[in-house]
Amino acid sequence: MEKISLLQQERAKYRPKLPAIFTGEGSVLAVERGKTESVDDQETVRTLFSKTYGLPLISFEPSEKISLEPVNVGVILSGGQAPGGHNVISGLFDGLKALNPENRLYGFLGGPGGLVENKYRELTADMINTYRNTGGFDIIGSGRTKLEKEEQFDKGLENLKALGIKALVIIGGDDSNTNAGILAEYYQKIDAGVQVIGCPKTIDGDLKNEMIEVSFGFDTATKVYSELIGNIARDALSAKKYWHFIKLMGRSASHIALECGLKTQPNITLISEEVEAKGMTLGDIVDEIAGTIAKRAEKGKHFGIVLIPEGLIEFIPEMKALIGELNDVIAHRSSELDSKDNPDEKRSLVSSMLSEKAGALYVSLPEDIADQLIMDRDPHGNVQVSRIETEKLLIEMVGEKLKALKEKGMYTGKFSAQNHFFGYEGRCAAPSNFDADYAYALGYTASALIGTGKTGYMSSVRNLTAPASKWIAGGVPLTMMMNIERRHGEDKPVIRKALVDLKGKPFEMLKKHRDQWAVETCYVYPGPIQYFGPEDVTDQRSETLTLEHE
Amino acid sequence: MEKISLLQQERAKYRPKLPAIFTGEGSVLAVERGKTESVDDQETVRTLFSKTYGLPLISFEPSEKISLEPVNVGVILSGGQAPGGHNVISGLFDGLKALNPENRLYGFLGGPGGLVENKYRELTADMINTYRNTGGFDIIGSGRTKLEKEEQFDKGLENLKALGIKALVIIGGDDSNTNAGILAEYYQKIDAGVQVIGCPKTIDGDLKNEMIEVSFGFDTATKVYSELIGNIARDALSAKKYWHFIKLMGRSASHIALECGLKTQPNITLISEEVEAKGMTLGDIVDEIAGTIAKRAEKGKHFGIVLIPEGLIEFIPEMKALIGELNDVIAHRSSELDSKDNPDEKRSLVSSMLSEKAGALYVSLPEDIADQLIMDRDPHGNVQVSRIETEKLLIEMVGEKLKALKEKGMYTGKFSAQNHFFGYEGRCAAPSNFDADYAYALGYTASALIGTGKTGYMSSVRNLTAPASKWIAGGVPLTMMMNIERRHGEDKPVIRKALVDLKGKPFEMLKKHRDQWAVETCYVYPGPIQYFGPEDVTDQRSETLTLEHE
Repeated sequence: MEKISLLQQERAKYRPKLPAIFTGEGSVLAVERGKTESVDDQETVRTLFSKTYGLPLISFEPSEKISLEPVNVGVILSGGQAPGGHNVISGLFDGLKALNPENRLYGFLGGPGGLVENKYRELTADMINTYRNTGGFDIIGSGRTKLEKEEQFDKGLENLKALGIKALVIIGGDDSNTNAGILAEYYQKIDAGVQVIGCPKTIDGDLKNEMIEVSFGFDTATKVYSELIGNIARDALSAKKYWHFIKLMGRSASHIALECGLKTQPNITLISEEVEAKGMTLGDIVDEIAGTIAKRAEKGKHFGIVLIPEGLIEFIPEMKALIGELNDVIAHRSSELDSKDNPDEKRSLVSSMLSEKAGALYVSLPEDIADQLIMDRDPHGNVQVSRIETEKLLIEMVGEKLKALKEKGMYTGKFSAQNHFFGYEGRCAAPSNFDADYAYALGYTASALIGTGKTGYMSSVRNLTAPASKWIAGGVPLTMMMNIERRHGEDKPVIRKALVDLKGKPFEMLKKHRDQWAVETCYVYPGPIQYFGPEDVTDQRSETLTLEHE
Repeated sequence: MEKISLLQQERAKYRPKLPAIFTGEGSVLAVERGKTESVDDQETVRTLFSKTYGLPLISFEPSEKISLEPVNVGVILSGGQAPGGHNVISGLFDGLKALNPENRLYGFLGGPGGLVENKYRELTADMINTYRNTGGFDIIGSGRTKLEKEEQFDKGLENLKALGIKALVIIGGDDSNTNAGILAEYYQKIDAGVQVIGCPKTIDGDLKNEMIEVSFGFDTATKVYSELIGNIARDALSAKKYWHFIKLMGRSASHIALECGLKTQPNITLISEEVEAKGMTLGDIVDEIAGTIAKRAEKGKHFGIVLIPEGLIEFIPEMKALIGELNDVIAHRSSELDSKDNPDEKRSLVSSMLSEKAGALYVSLPEDIADQLIMDRDPHGNVQVSRIETEKLLIEMVGEKLKALKEKGMYTGKFSAQNHFFGYEGRCAAPSNFDADYAYALGYTASALIGTGKTGYMSSVRNLTAPASKWIAGGVPLTMMMNIERRHGEDKPVIRKALVDLKGKPFEMLKKHRDQWAVETCYVYPGPIQYFGPEDVTDQRSETLTLEHE
């Protein structure tokens, strides 16, 4: 028999909280509120989405019990895991069963690819029950196949029809929801008779906008990372001998680093968006970190915590340029490169192939990083930016800088560092109460959008800083979040990614306190996620959400 | 004002549970139970500890309220952090105040060095209250200075006398408690009038024996690591594309890896003690891992979890021999080595300096590891074994092995791996209920040993699988745990380190299930430590403790 942890056994009993609209006896009706426009490039987006552009925002109001014909629904988990995925599915399941106990839910396996390849499983009550309030996407698995071609859509439709599926829910990030919008438009255009509804998922926190306050998963993942950062900070303060450089997942945006920074108050929190806005060089960043280390050393504090967003490198303008040039060099002159065995010779050959500025930067990098940039290539032959160990790069360069400062008598400490990278540790944690409730409500709302006949919508639950009963469920047209962006040399309609707003309250809060946090020691230790006990502990909202919406 | 997390605020209210003997109205009397002998080398140990050898085991019985003269006590945190350190100190404080409200407690700062350098702080009720049930050693800091020379003892005594301190409590691992025993003997011999009491601390779990069931900190640290391993396992199962190689702190013994393995049921749990006992080579270990990966690939499972104890390398007999030879080479022929700049040439020079067997092993290592072995040296000029990234070494070698298997048609998968190292994440976590109670009870017991006039004892709390009220408090003579071992070319009395017992029940349990866990997917997700809620969740004992004592 499968062994289940004690916590999981107890947590299975948790009943996620729902917005009041869904806890009444009756049914709900959709209320339409005016026409919408896309966030930018309205004309182009309107032309591309002739069927689903300009749909109204949807909210719900209570109605008498309505009896609906039974319907079969499909669900897909797309992209990286995020805590709460299983609760979206159980909310969807419960919502569908409340509409009509005959409704059936099918899960496509291994992500969007499962739809095209017709890999699926019917999700029964017994199965759903063993996954309630658990982490992971393992109930049906996830995958990164992109649904973007008409032949995929057609093949998918064939499979949907064979199962009698009339509505499809796609749980994913900005890309997957963009594709959900395109699929909704296509099925509408060919009169396929299949509704498509999206759900906002990503730990990165970069799928948010005026109508979507946060994606599910961000709350839990940042709580896990903050637990670990707090523990490490307490260790640093106790042992008083290490600087810990901690890289945090979140490929483009720095929301995760910012949230963890606000929760734990480390000495330094780097924000990629700020680095880019200020046009900072790698040297500037190194100087800033070394400066703080020297200042703390003056006060006898030879320890500290630095948070580094995963995407940092690509936001440093000169590094971005260097990587672009290196990609060209690799693409066009790799046989010359491969002819050199001696690493020193190879590095000077590379630098001679670059522009003066990029060449100078290249030779200033630590040797192992310079080698790594050339050696590790992705399947398209490009530099593998995500493989660059930014945390080690910074440690090495900061160490060199401090040596130089020491020679000038401007630094007297001993610099010892440890590096960490947190990502996989948080993506499949069991959801916090907030994410358990929010994800469940998103799934339940998706069932209501299906029940009221909508397509081309993202499930939306707002007013999230209030207690769950006061949350506002509804639907946001997917086209409303789109604009046109250049991708791989083509103009494409995409849901706009939310980067850290340098004028927003969360970043303002960091800015206000960071000079003090840098030099003094103001660590906060959030501890692990609690599922039982005082509500102020179990139901805490993220700092980001609270600052943005309260 | 200092910001405290919500969880910490709520957790501050927790009242640690105590053995019944300490919850009565009256005082306690020490009961002596027979003479003791050291675990080995009795004659030598007896000679070295003429004053404190053979002391009886101590237990307590209730007595009428006894009034004692006020006494000043000192406390020291020694070595690496472990969850519960602050609770030992608060238990000691509360116990001392119960003996006599006039009693005072002084903490020496930054570890044993604080005693010698006379750096201290009086620990008042207000101060203690802000540290109850928190992680870290930051109330007084810790350090790794070893108290082993008479001049340190004399200097320390001077400082103790100046503060009127009559008893000293040293909270540390096997080495620190060995030194506590030596200090107790010395102060007894010179009639210093200072009692010395030790407390068993270490997350590594290697300070245990017939009389000490476990050290405090092991429970919490392994719970934190298991939370993360479970989350990563769930991610592996959801994404189905990575093998995660996870190294776990625990320098010599593999108790941490074993405990986490039993809690989370990963595919592979390496146990250093078994590797040594079987005389396994690095190649054997690589073959075993690659074999399991190939078996899972046959079933379409291209993912998995491998747990690696930090000390593994030193338990592989051929690696131990290689490192010994490398240390000789570095010590005697470093100028020759330094003359080579080209890494290929340097590696072949090194291998020519080694015995045939060691040379062959050296050149079979991945190049970056071979370079690292020569480059990174500790302050004594030795190979920095702890810097070897075993998890990356294994990934690289397993990858090569799988390539070879693929060429022979014996492996058909795609091997992608991620590496992790967990250590600092768990050492300063807020203690679990078990560690909060146990550490507090150890501190309280230390106060009782002081009150009953004992010296040369380790505070002991047994029967730990029972509810706390049934725990048995007492004292174990430090000499009873000692034997003679060769250290740095000298025979020394030391407390015997407890390695994983290959005939013990915890390892038996792993052995019984590991073939199934390897090929099937039987992950368990323990989730984060819970401080509130159902008692079976909050008060769970470690698998190791339960299997050894129930």
